Amino acid sequence: MGSTSKKTFLPLDPVSFTDKLPDSTPYCPEPLEDILKDVNDCIIPGLTHWQSPNFFAYFQANASTAGFLGEMLCSGFNVVGFNWISSPAATELESLVLDWVGKLLKLPSSFLFSGTGGGVSHGSTCEAVVCVLAAARDKALERLGGWEHMTKLVVYASDQTHFTFQKAAKLVGIPPSNFRLIETSFSTGFSMSPEMTRLTIEDDVKSGLVPLFLCATIGTTPTGAVDPIVELGKVAMEFKLWLHIDAAYAGSACICAELRHYLDGVELANSISMNPHKWFLTNMDCCCLWIKEPNLLTDSLSSDPEYLRNKASKSKEVVDYKDWQIALSRRFRALKLWIVIRRHGLANLMYHIRSDIAMAKRFEAFVRKDERFEMVVPRKFALVCFRLKPKAEEEDEGRELNRKLVEAINSSGRAFMSHAVAGGIYVIRCAIGTTLTQQHHVDALWKLILTRFGRKALALRKRCGTEFVGDEDEILDDFIAAAEM
Amino acid sequence: MGSTSKKTFLPLDPVSFTDKLPDSTPYCPEPLEDILKDVNDCIIPGLTHWQSPNFFAYFQANASTAGFLGEMLCSGFNVVGFNWISSPAATELESLVLDWVGKLLKLPSSFLFSGTGGGVSHGSTCEAVVCVLAAARDKALERLGGWEHMTKLVVYASDQTHFTFQKAAKLVGIPPSNFRLIETSFSTGFSMSPEMTRLTIEDDVKSGLVPLFLCATIGTTPTGAVDPIVELGKVAMEFKLWLHIDAAYAGSACICAELRHYLDGVELANSISMNPHKWFLTNMDCCCLWIKEPNLLTDSLSSDPEYLRNKASKSKEVVDYKDWQIALSRRFRALKLWIVIRRHGLANLMYHIRSDIAMAKRFEAFVRKDERFEMVVPRKFALVCFRLKPKAEEEDEGRELNRKLVEAINSSGRAFMSHAVAGGIYVIRCAIGTTLTQQHHVDALWKLILTRFGRKALALRKRCGTEFVGDEDEILDDFIAAAEM
Repeated sequence: MGSTSKKTFLPLDPVSFTDKLPDSTPYCPEPLEDILKDVNDCIIPGLTHWQSPNFFAYFQANASTAGFLGEMLCSGFNVVGFNWISSPAATELESLVLDWVGKLLKLPSSFLFSGTGGGVSHGSTCEAVVCVLAAARDKALERLGGWEHMTKLVVYASDQTHFTFQKAAKLVGIPPSNFRLIETSFSTGFSMSPEMTRLTIEDDVKSGLVPLFLCATIGTTPTGAVDPIVELGKVAMEFKLWLHIDAAYAGSACICAELRHYLDGVELANSISMNPHKWFLTNMDCCCLWIKEPNLLTDSLSSDPEYLRNKASKSKEVVDYKDWQIALSRRFRALKLWIVIRRHGLANLMYHIRSDIAMAKRFEAFVRKDERFEMVVPRKFALVCFRLKPKAEEEDEGRELNRKLVEAINSSGRAFMSHAVAGGIYVIRCAIGTTLTQQHHVDALWKLILTRFGRKALALRKRCGTEFVGDEDEILDDFIAAAEM
Repeated sequence: MGSTSKKTFLPLDPVSFTDKLPDSTPYCPEPLEDILKDVNDCIIPGLTHWQSPNFFAYFQANASTAGFLGEMLCSGFNVVGFNWISSPAATELESLVLDWVGKLLKLPSSFLFSGTGGGVSHGSTCEAVVCVLAAARDKALERLGGWEHMTKLVVYASDQTHFTFQKAAKLVGIPPSNFRLIETSFSTGFSMSPEMTRLTIEDDVKSGLVPLFLCATIGTTPTGAVDPIVELGKVAMEFKLWLHIDAAYAGSACICAELRHYLDGVELANSISMNPHKWFLTNMDCCCLWIKEPNLLTDSLSSDPEYLRNKASKSKEVVDYKDWQIALSRRFRALKLWIVIRRHGLANLMYHIRSDIAMAKRFEAFVRKDERFEMVVPRKFALVCFRLKPKAEEEDEGRELNRKLVEAINSSGRAFMSHAVAGGIYVIRCAIGTTLTQQHHVDALWKLILTRFGRKALALRKRCGTEFVGDEDEILDDFIAAAEM
């Protein structure tokens, strides 16, 4: 998978990469060589190279040879395991591997098939959250006595919770006016305050509303913050809310003993999800969802059309995964996760996590040693949130300065980073964790920041004081020109 | 991908196929050979072989070398094209190929990017329908003035519409009491009656309810019925309902000129979906959704969190597919669909459809020639719905007789079929269309039905009159024994 372009990442101009491709469907079959030539010439240069070791944006999407093999087998078998009989081994293996991963995370047996719960693989966190929200909603509506109570249901998260939670809540019909996003702050590392959550819930109860669902996060997207599960769990239990833990990113890290404490309190949750397709060497797509009361999920999502009826389902002794997810059809995703775990072993999976964290510590040290930069929030996993210090307490200047730094790095095509805003502060996110990233890539990133754009930006800041002078695009051009020298 | 078992399909007893597998995660990496041995010994024998040419159940899940190549590239690149900049070529190619397929189906330009609409690939019909239902819901709620009107919204389909429509409607918060399933009948080939639909809508309007959404199907799952799009479209327009066409199965067939007429009236719809992963040689998963007003979809599903903001999105000149679907993350599915179309060409894609239909006609002729059997509904595509004629007008006897026939065929492990019930009639479904099915497989299936189980069943019927005597399981054992002789 080489690129014909020298650059790893693309300039941002929205030009069409498909202009050179045939614009209509061929009547006759085309030779494979022609198709692959177009893939190489037109498509690869237009991809953002998520598998590049210089990809530090968003959260990484891990791939591995084992994961690739799993996907090949999945695509080759091409079975559709919507219910047990439609591919028994696909269902059985999924149940097995979900228990495996649950045990690696030391989830209580109440989340495992070997205990009283169970797990399922989804394509994404949002799909998983839609399903548990629907389960919680339907249970509440039954208790309240009907669908006319929909507009009373309230959901809680923090202002750092991934936006897909709000999307999921809106999808299942919770009115957006009933979303409570508890404000976080710099002083608490952007974690969700149990006290503020409790007060907000009490207010809603007083107003005659019905608190339904609380989403806590282990490793938020903007800054990698961790919500306090034990305390939030107690609040959730007191008010009978469904507590979901979104550990999409940092869940994988909790297989390491020294990081497992972030999941303390998980026994208070009703459901938890994590994405092996992020940091667990498992190619897209794979999100694991565990739930304590699978019957609540299936009560909400199950269906029994005549054309799918069969002896095994009727026996109630088997799992029909169609009733654990949105869609009917489903790919045999469990296979790749199972192969990834066996091929790497727990030892190498932990090594993968730990070496990424070690590299993040190294990058953090670079930031801390250079007084022109600062860490914005304490690093917990392998996401480093930093910025160029603004000269004065001028947050706007800090925002522009850092925005331009990210833009210049990305425009160089040599690395790709992303940003966030937390507590009004513009944060540069350095997410370390692609499968191929090694120490020298991290060192090169720091050098790129420092010796080219950093120096230029700092020079500009000195020249301009707290404000830029001249046309912003001109300044950006300068940045890019400096990068291309 | 051979099977170590002689049989293509499994006996139905819910035994665990994973008993022989390691029951906990290994600490050390395991050799690939050990893993593949387990795949071969424990997993493959426990799969239901959807790619077997003797698979005639549900609707087929097509695979092809081109589709497999596309999946390999997708898994190798492992890009996550949630917005344009996160992989421009992935978005551009998806828009291109959705227009390609739309043009093959002769969709009006109002559904295409080259016109005023646009398309997106989803994993399944249910996900696509959830999204368009949410778009319709949110538009209606805005018009009505708020979320408290949710319980007034009513959705319409037929009693033959795939159950995922009801699941999707419930997911987006439409109360199940507001689902109207228009009754179909044998006399109209189980298609949805525009007159009954209109009367039902009028009743709802009179009751102060708000008709929202009508789902029509081209090729229903139970019997392959086609709903009358032109007439239903007129009703939908008159009452301002969102009309969605679910062409999951039979949409692919409409690339053939002689079958395109089933889509007549599509210009009256708001959205239409079809699944290339069924009958279009595209490995799982791939569902195409086209929509006339993409802004309604993105109004409902879009989000603009700071950490995903970028110049390209801000320009509004690019497509951010995260706002066209449930999840944030997404696989580069378009690649395989594009490769499938180029590698086969329209000519071979049409040949694939037509040869399946020719085989279905052949099977239909077998049924029609044998007076002990009957076609239950006219065949339109490559799904043959037939049954052993019950001796008298005893539908119960017909149900039991045919149920046991299906069970006996499936228990033989030599072919796999499924059933449906339409208008109270138990129907055996012979869905012809796996990539590898050839005429001799269809002939063998008929022979299997006729010479082994058919003869036995007929003999039993003669012996028992209209009722079975003795223990049902015993009779089934006889069937199976006969099969294994």
